Amino acid sequence: MTATSQIRAAIRDIPDFPKPGILFRDITPVLSDAGLFRLAIREFVDICREAKAAKIAGIDARGFLFGATVAYELGLGFVPVRKKGKLPFHTITQSYDLEYGSAEVEIHTDAFTEGERVVLIDDLLATGGTAGAAIRLITQSGARVVAAAFLLELADLGGRKALGDVPITAIVTYP
Amino acid sequence: MTATSQIRAAIRDIPDFPKPGILFRDITPVLSDAGLFRLAIREFVDICREAKAAKIAGIDARGFLFGATVAYELGLGFVPVRKKGKLPFHTITQSYDLEYGSAEVEIHTDAFTEGERVVLIDDLLATGGTAGAAIRLITQSGARVVAAAFLLELADLGGRKALGDVPITAIVTYP
Repeated sequence: MTATSQIRAAIRDIPDFPKPGILFRDITPVLSDAGLFRLAIREFVDICREAKAAKIAGIDARGFLFGATVAYELGLGFVPVRKKGKLPFHTITQSYDLEYGSAEVEIHTDAFTEGERVVLIDDLLATGGTAGAAIRLITQSGARVVAAAFLLELADLGGRKALGDVPITAIVTYP
Repeated sequence: MTATSQIRAAIRDIPDFPKPGILFRDITPVLSDAGLFRLAIREFVDICREAKAAKIAGIDARGFLFGATVAYELGLGFVPVRKKGKLPFHTITQSYDLEYGSAEVEIHTDAFTEGERVVLIDDLLATGGTAGAAIRLITQSGARVVAAAFLLELADLGGRKALGDVPITAIVTYP
């Protein structure tokens, strides 16, 4: 079995979460199994090496699980992209649309250096709202998003369109 | 310089965040410096080895950064302790007091096995509310919290009292 098929087999489908009609893909079985978590991290590491990443950014909160671990394994620094109001130093902010209303993500103004090669990591690419805002933030700060990598992609939701021309890799793609 | 003093030197003090009178200890400089992040992870790894951990639990969201990385390095599974409403499968819940009101944390009912040796990891031990609730959750599920480990401890806030008789280690202690 490939890493992708092993990981996919462990993902747990939860109907009607967080609300009726939504099929939630639960990644906690991948986290609780050390071998599967290692396989997933190796896939992310390969993507980051290929992209010649100099720094890893991860999105609050599940992107922290994969992003920080990948940064550690590669010996790179890690930058958290956080929900608004969580980062204490000077920040820049980008907003993105939700089904009802909007939300904002932030990074510290000193998170990246000019031209730094950044790989953005999150667990899930769905509509691409959060990841798109994160890419705008990193770009606004003067760094360069050389790849975006996700454990899962829900391809039907068309999230790739929200990420501009950043190369995108998902380890497992649905459907 | 010891690991502790190197990490402590990198922590950034931010006055009046998140509100006037609070001195916030900003750990993002430790994350963005690969060498410091590695030092911190090594300290956590030593604590977990000493405690003979079989699984690592980390608290949403900054506990994910350290907890998942430590689990990876040790080849152990990781369990997220999450804010209420984030986990999709069957959950158990514990509440804890905030300055005004209360909050709740959850784990999945199948996160741990009976008697499993768990080390709880978070970035900060302050009043101990969240960590105490996490320990009650893990204990309620039948597992055993053999250690709690934090990057920072604000000793003046007396958080150790909220953690019962679980052995506690903080890598950097204030004041």
